Amino acid sequence: MTTEPLKIGVLGYRFMGKAHANALARLPMFFPDAPDVERHTLVGRDEAALAAAADRFGFAHTETDWGAAIDEVDVFYNLGPNHVHAEPSIAALEAGVPVFCEKPLAPTLEEASAMHEAAADADVPAGCAFNYRFVPAIRYARNLIADGELGEIRQIRGRYLQDWLVDPDAPWAWRLDSELAGSGTLGDLGAHTIDLANFLVGDEVGGVDRVSGHLRTFVDERPVLDDDGDVEEYRDVTVDDAYTAQVAYDSGAMGSFEASRFAAGHKNDHTIEVHGSKGSLTFSLERLNELEVLREDSRGYETVLVTDESDPYIDHWWPPGHVIGWEHTFVHENYEFLSAVAEGDEFSPSFAEGYEVQRVLDAIERADERGEWVDVE
Amino acid sequence: MTTEPLKIGVLGYRFMGKAHANALARLPMFFPDAPDVERHTLVGRDEAALAAAADRFGFAHTETDWGAAIDEVDVFYNLGPNHVHAEPSIAALEAGVPVFCEKPLAPTLEEASAMHEAAADADVPAGCAFNYRFVPAIRYARNLIADGELGEIRQIRGRYLQDWLVDPDAPWAWRLDSELAGSGTLGDLGAHTIDLANFLVGDEVGGVDRVSGHLRTFVDERPVLDDDGDVEEYRDVTVDDAYTAQVAYDSGAMGSFEASRFAAGHKNDHTIEVHGSKGSLTFSLERLNELEVLREDSRGYETVLVTDESDPYIDHWWPPGHVIGWEHTFVHENYEFLSAVAEGDEFSPSFAEGYEVQRVLDAIERADERGEWVDVE
Amino acid sequence: MTTEPLKIGVLGYRFMGKAHANALARLPMFFPDAPDVERHTLVGRDEAALAAAADRFGFAHTETDWGAAIDEVDVFYNLGPNHVHAEPSIAALEAGVPVFCEKPLAPTLEEASAMHEAAADADVPAGCAFNYRFVPAIRYARNLIADGELGEIRQIRGRYLQDWLVDPDAPWAWRLDSELAGSGTLGDLGAHTIDLANFLVGDEVGGVDRVSGHLRTFVDERPVLDDDGDVEEYRDVTVDDAYTAQVAYDSGAMGSFEASRFAAGHKNDHTIEVHGSKGSLTFSLERLNELEVLREDSRGYETVLVTDESDPYIDHWWPPGHVIGWEHTFVHENYEFLSAVAEGDEFSPSFAEGYEVQRVLDAIERADERGEWVDVE
Amino acid sequence: MTTEPLKIGVLGYRFMGKAHANALARLPMFFPDAPDVERHTLVGRDEAALAAAADRFGFAHTETDWGAAIDEVDVFYNLGPNHVHAEPSIAALEAGVPVFCEKPLAPTLEEASAMHEAAADADVPAGCAFNYRFVPAIRYARNLIADGELGEIRQIRGRYLQDWLVDPDAPWAWRLDSELAGSGTLGDLGAHTIDLANFLVGDEVGGVDRVSGHLRTFVDERPVLDDDGDVEEYRDVTVDDAYTAQVAYDSGAMGSFEASRFAAGHKNDHTIEVHGSKGSLTFSLERLNELEVLREDSRGYETVLVTDESDPYIDHWWPPGHVIGWEHTFVHENYEFLSAVAEGDEFSPSFAEGYEVQRVLDAIERADERGEWVDVE
Repeated sequence: MTTEPLKIGVLGYRFMGKAHANALARLPMFFPDAPDVERHTLVGRDEAALAAAADRFGFAHTETDWGAAIDEVDVFYNLGPNHVHAEPSIAALEAGVPVFCEKPLAPTLEEASAMHEAAADADVPAGCAFNYRFVPAIRYARNLIADGELGEIRQIRGRYLQDWLVDPDAPWAWRLDSELAGSGTLGDLGAHTIDLANFLVGDEVGGVDRVSGHLRTFVDERPVLDDDGDVEEYRDVTVDDAYTAQVAYDSGAMGSFEASRFAAGHKNDHTIEVHGSKGSLTFSLERLNELEVLREDSRGYETVLVTDESDPYIDHWWPPGHVIGWEHTFVHENYEFLSAVAEGDEFSPSFAEGYEVQRVLDAIERADERGEWVDVE
Repeated sequence: MTTEPLKIGVLGYRFMGKAHANALARLPMFFPDAPDVERHTLVGRDEAALAAAADRFGFAHTETDWGAAIDEVDVFYNLGPNHVHAEPSIAALEAGVPVFCEKPLAPTLEEASAMHEAAADADVPAGCAFNYRFVPAIRYARNLIADGELGEIRQIRGRYLQDWLVDPDAPWAWRLDSELAGSGTLGDLGAHTIDLANFLVGDEVGGVDRVSGHLRTFVDERPVLDDDGDVEEYRDVTVDDAYTAQVAYDSGAMGSFEASRFAAGHKNDHTIEVHGSKGSLTFSLERLNELEVLREDSRGYETVLVTDESDPYIDHWWPPGHVIGWEHTFVHENYEFLSAVAEGDEFSPSFAEGYEVQRVLDAIERADERGEWVDVE
Repeated sequence: MTTEPLKIGVLGYRFMGKAHANALARLPMFFPDAPDVERHTLVGRDEAALAAAADRFGFAHTETDWGAAIDEVDVFYNLGPNHVHAEPSIAALEAGVPVFCEKPLAPTLEEASAMHEAAADADVPAGCAFNYRFVPAIRYARNLIADGELGEIRQIRGRYLQDWLVDPDAPWAWRLDSELAGSGTLGDLGAHTIDLANFLVGDEVGGVDRVSGHLRTFVDERPVLDDDGDVEEYRDVTVDDAYTAQVAYDSGAMGSFEASRFAAGHKNDHTIEVHGSKGSLTFSLERLNELEVLREDSRGYETVLVTDESDPYIDHWWPPGHVIGWEHTFVHENYEFLSAVAEGDEFSPSFAEGYEVQRVLDAIERADERGEWVDVE
Repeated sequence: MTTEPLKIGVLGYRFMGKAHANALARLPMFFPDAPDVERHTLVGRDEAALAAAADRFGFAHTETDWGAAIDEVDVFYNLGPNHVHAEPSIAALEAGVPVFCEKPLAPTLEEASAMHEAAADADVPAGCAFNYRFVPAIRYARNLIADGELGEIRQIRGRYLQDWLVDPDAPWAWRLDSELAGSGTLGDLGAHTIDLANFLVGDEVGGVDRVSGHLRTFVDERPVLDDDGDVEEYRDVTVDDAYTAQVAYDSGAMGSFEASRFAAGHKNDHTIEVHGSKGSLTFSLERLNELEVLREDSRGYETVLVTDESDPYIDHWWPPGHVIGWEHTFVHENYEFLSAVAEGDEFSPSFAEGYEVQRVLDAIERADERGEWVDVE
C-alpha cells in the first residue's frame, strides 16, 4: 500500500482531461477507500490554455514536455489525441510508471502492438480507458451473462450513432484526418462497441475469428473556418463517416456492428443487444441507468433501473431511483485503475485488451479494402 | 370495368390462405369501390382438410388439381409453400390469368427469373404479396421520403427478429429444409426487409450494387415428432437460422440487414430505420400503427400514431387512435391488386420487384459462400 | 341450442353500427363455434342513409320504427345515441328479446335504473357493450390479478385522453349537449374507465364507496357550421370537456381517474395502472397488444406482447407477434354475447354492471356539484 | 462581490448533507464564476458520526450547537429533518445569515408561516431547496411554456411513485411519524409535485384556488428492529402512505396529483404532464435527461434529449448526448443560490414559494379531513 498520495500526471486537458480530472476530484467523497491522489502535473503544448486548465482542474503544476512530466509523477494518464498515444505511453511504461491511456489504444495496429509489448514488459498496470465497461448496467449485464442467465450466446449487435456531421457544411476537424485520428467512426466509436462486446460476451464466444467490413465517407471535403467563421479552405476528409461490420466469433456466434456520425437525431446512442439461448438484453447509453432484460421465464423485456444498492458501484452514490450520469463511469474506472496501481493488481481493460480491439478494427479496415472476409491477425 | 364478380382461385389454405380469405371477405364493407369478388375455388391436396377450409373461408368449390382450378377462375392466388410458387404461377400467367403470389417469389433465383419472364410476357398483373408495403405507417414513411423530408438517404437498417427456434428441441418443420423453402431466415424474413428497403428508399438510393453476407445454422438437426409427441427421428436443418448482410447501394448509401429465429423475446419484430441528411425514421412491426420520425426542425423522434383520417387507407376504417392490426395489410394489398386487375392497371409490388428482391437474396447467399462481397447479378 | 340463424336487429348505423356489423360478419371465419347469425334489420330514421348502410353492412331489411324491428328479430342491438338507449332496450326486454346496448347504459341514473330493472325481470341476456373488457391484454391482466399475482390491490389509476376539442373553433356536436349525451368526458370516456377498473379489480377491492369529482368545460360555446362550412350560429356546450375523480373503494383501495378531450397529442389514449402488494401493471389502448407487468420477483416492468396462442382469444386469430386491432374487441364481445344468447347463459358485462358504472358516474357528478365527497347511491 | 470565500455551515449530514456537500465541491471545476466557498462547519448531534462525515464531506469544523455554528458562518444550510427546519432557519435569518433549507419548508403550516415571515423581514436570501426546478429538461419545459409554445394551459398532472413501503414488514422509520415528518407522501413527495407545477405553469394558471384531498395509510404499524434485525416493538404509522388530490387553479385549469410509497416497481418516478391549447409535455425523473414535447405542428410527442449546449446549464458539463444525473440538480441550485447570496439578488424558489406549497399541502390535508373541497388559506 502506498501511504503518500499518488502523484498523477495527465497529458491532455480538453474533453477527456476534464472528465478524468473530475473523476479524480470526486473519489475521496464517494470512494473513500480509493488511494489518495494528487492532481500533480498537467501536460500540454499551449502554455496559456494549459495554465488555465490546470487552475480549473486542480493541478499544481504544468509541463509542456511529457518526458519531464513522466519523471515527476507516480502515474501517467495519456488523454491526448490518438497519434500521441504510443510514444509517451511506452516511455512511461519503460520508466516503470503506470499508464492509463484513452481509447482507442493507437491509430494503427503497429503502434498498438508496440504499446501492448511495452505493457507486457512492464511491471506496472497499463490500462486502456474504455469507460463504458464501468456503467453499472453494463456490469450488471455482464454478471447476468457470466452467470448463464442468457444461456449460450448466439448473436450480439452493436451500433453507435451520432449526428454531428450530418450537415455537409459542418467544419473540418482533426478527427476527420486519418494521420491524426487513425480512422473515423470505426476507431472512435467502433472501438467502444467491439470492446463492450468483448467485455460482455468474450468469455462465452471467444475471440473474433473473421470479419467483413464496410467503411464510407459521405462528404469528401469540409470547410476550414477562420476566426470570423469564414471559409478559409476546404480540406479532405480522410476517414470513414460510417462503418458496418459482420463478425464471426470463435464459438460460432454472430456479431453485427456499425457506427455513424450521420444518424440524424442520435447524439450519443450506443446500443448493444445480446441474444442467447435463454434470454436477451438491450442497453442504450442515452438511458444508461436502464437495462432491458429478457429472462428465461419471462414473456417480454423487463426494464431494470440499475440503481439499487446491490448494483455495481451504486452503494457509493445515491438511493434507488436517483440516477447517475455519463461522467460517473470515469469515477468508477479511475477508482479501479488507481486501486490496481496501489495494490499492485492487474487492471482490466489492459493494453492487451485494447490491442485485441485494435486487431479487430484493423481487420475490419482490411476486409473493407479487400472486399472479402478476413481473419483477425 | 368488370361487371361480374371476379372468380378467385386460391392455392393454399393455411396461414396465408386464411389471411387472404379474410381480406377478400372484408372488402365490400370497408372498400366498397373494390371489384366484386367471388371466393370461388380453393386448391390443395388433402381433400378433407381442404373441404373444411373451403367451408370456413367461404369458397364454393375445391380442387386438388391446380391446373384445373386455373381454367375456372379469373384470378389465381398462389399461397403455397415456396417450392410450388413457380410452376402454377407461370401456368396461370401463360393462360392469361392474373396471379398474386406470396413472397418470396421463389426458392431459387432461377425459378424467380422464369416467373419474372412469364409475367413480363403476360398482359395481366402479376403481383408479389409483400404485405408490409401496405402498412399505413410504411406508406406514410415512404411519402415523407419521396417528398424529400429526410433529405439525401445515407443509411438504412433492417432487422427481422423471431424466437421460435431458440429452443434447440423445437421440432423440425418444412421451413427448415432448403429443398422446400429455399433458404431460412434470409428468404422468409430477409425478403420482407430487402423489399421494404426498396419500397422506402429505392427511388433515392437506386438498386443494390454489392453485398456481403453471413448465414448461420445454430442447431444442425431437430426432432421429428410422431402423433404422441415422441421423437421419431432427427432431421437435418439445411437452411440458415440467422443471417446478416451489408449492402452498398448505387447511390453510395449503406444498408445493414439481419434476421433471426433465435432472438429470445422477439415474436415478429421487423424493424426498419432510415437516416437521411435532414431526418430519420424508425418503424417496428410489433407497433405497426406508429412511426418514429425525426424531422429537420426537430430535436428528437416524434412518435406519430398513423391513424388519422388523412393517413393511407385509414379513412376506410376507424376514427383516429382506433388502431388496426397486422391483418389489415392484407385487405389493403388485396384491394390494390384486385383494383389493378379490374382496371387493367399495373400492380406494385410486381413479379419484377419480387425478382429484384430475389437477386439480392441470391447475392447474399453467394457472398456468404465465397467469403467476399459480390455484385448483384 | 338454436338451429336457425339468430336474426339480429340493430338500431344505429354510424360508428358503432359499423363496428358491430363488422364483428358479426367476421364471426363465422374466426369463431366457427359461434351461433349462426343473420344481419336481419337495420333501424334508423333517415331512410336513404339507412338503405345505404344496410347495403354496405349486409342487412337484408331496414326499418324506421324500432318497435316493429323488435317484433321481427331474435336479438336487438341498441347502438343509438345515449338518449335513445332506455326506451327501445326496455321494450325489447319486455318482449323477451335479448338486448346488447352500447355504453354508457343511459344518460341519467334514473333511466339506467329502469333498464337495469327491466333486465332483472327478463329471462334473456341484457348486455352492456363495454368492449375494452375484451382486449386480450385486459383479460390477461385480469387473470393475473384474480390469480393473486399482484397481491392485495392498493391503487388503481385510469385516464382516457383525447384531443378532438383542443381547437376552440372545433364545431359543436351532439356529444356536447347534456340532453342528448347525458354528460361529456365523464359518460363517454369515464364510463369505460370505471367499468374497466371494476372488471380488473372489482373482486378484490369491492364496490366504489365514496367519490370526489371535478368537471370542467373549457370552451362554453362552439360554432354550428352550415353545409358550406360557414358558421350558422354558436351553441352552448353543456357537458364537461374534462373530469377528474378520486375514489375510495370498499377495501380501502384508492382510485384516481380522469379524462379529457383537450389533451393535445392523445387520440384515444386509455391508460389503466394498478398497484398491488406484489406487483403492478399498466395498459394503454393505443398499444393494445401490450401489457406492462411488474411481477413479484422482477426488478422492472416486463413488456408482454399479448399475442401468444395461449392468450385470450388469440388462438382464433394469427400467430404470435401478428398484432390485432381495436375492432377485434367487438368480435370478441359479439362472440361472447351471442354465445350467451344461444346457450341461455349469463353475459357479462350485464345491464347490472352497466348500472353499477352509472351509479359511480352519477356520484362523481353530484360530488362535483356539492363540492364534497359523496357516497355512491 | 465577496472576495473572501463564503463560509458555509450545514446542519445535517446524511442523504441531503452528502448531496449538497458534493455540489459545493464540484462548483469550482464546472461553474468557475460561482462564488468561492469554504465547507466550514458541519452541524449534528452524534459527534462521532459527525466527525466522520465532516472528514468525508470536506468540512473543517464540526459543531453540535447550531446556534454557535450560525455565528461562525456566512451561509446556513438547513438539511435536517422537517421538524428542525423552523427554529434554526429563523434564528439564522434573524442573525442576517442567508439560509438554504430543504423541502418541505416545515412540517406544519404554522411553522412554515413563521419561516416565511422571518424571510420577509430579512435582507438576505432564504431559499427552499426544491432541486427539481434545476433539472435542465424542466427549465427547458418552463421556457417552452413561458414562450407560449403550449398555448393556454388547461391541465396539469403529477405523480410521484416509490415502492419502499410495499412490503408490510418494511421497518418503521422517522418519516412515518407525523410529529417528526409532518406528513408522509404528501409532504415528502407531494411538495415536489406542487412546487414543480407552480414553477412550470404558475404564471399561466395563477395560484391554487381549491383542492380536494385523499390520504391513506395502508399499513398501520411497522416493526422497529434492534441491531440484530429482530423486532423490538411495533410502532404506529401516523402519516399517509399515499395521497391523491384534485386541484382547481385560479385560471380554471385543472390539476390532478398523487404520490405513493406503495407503487411496486417505481423507485423514484416523478412524472409531470401538462396539456395546453397548442401542445403538451411529459417529464419523468427516472429519465431526467429527456422531455416529451408535443408541439403545435407535430403529430406526436417528440423525445427531446435535453443535453445540447444551448440547454440550461449543459454548457457547463459535457457534449450533447452525454447524460447527467440526479445529483447535478444540486450543483445547479447551489450555483444559483450562492450566486444570489454573493450578488445580493433574489433567489427562487424562496421561502415565500416554499410557503405557497405548504398552503396547498395544508389545504389537501384539511380537504381530506373534512371530506370536501376547501380553499387554500
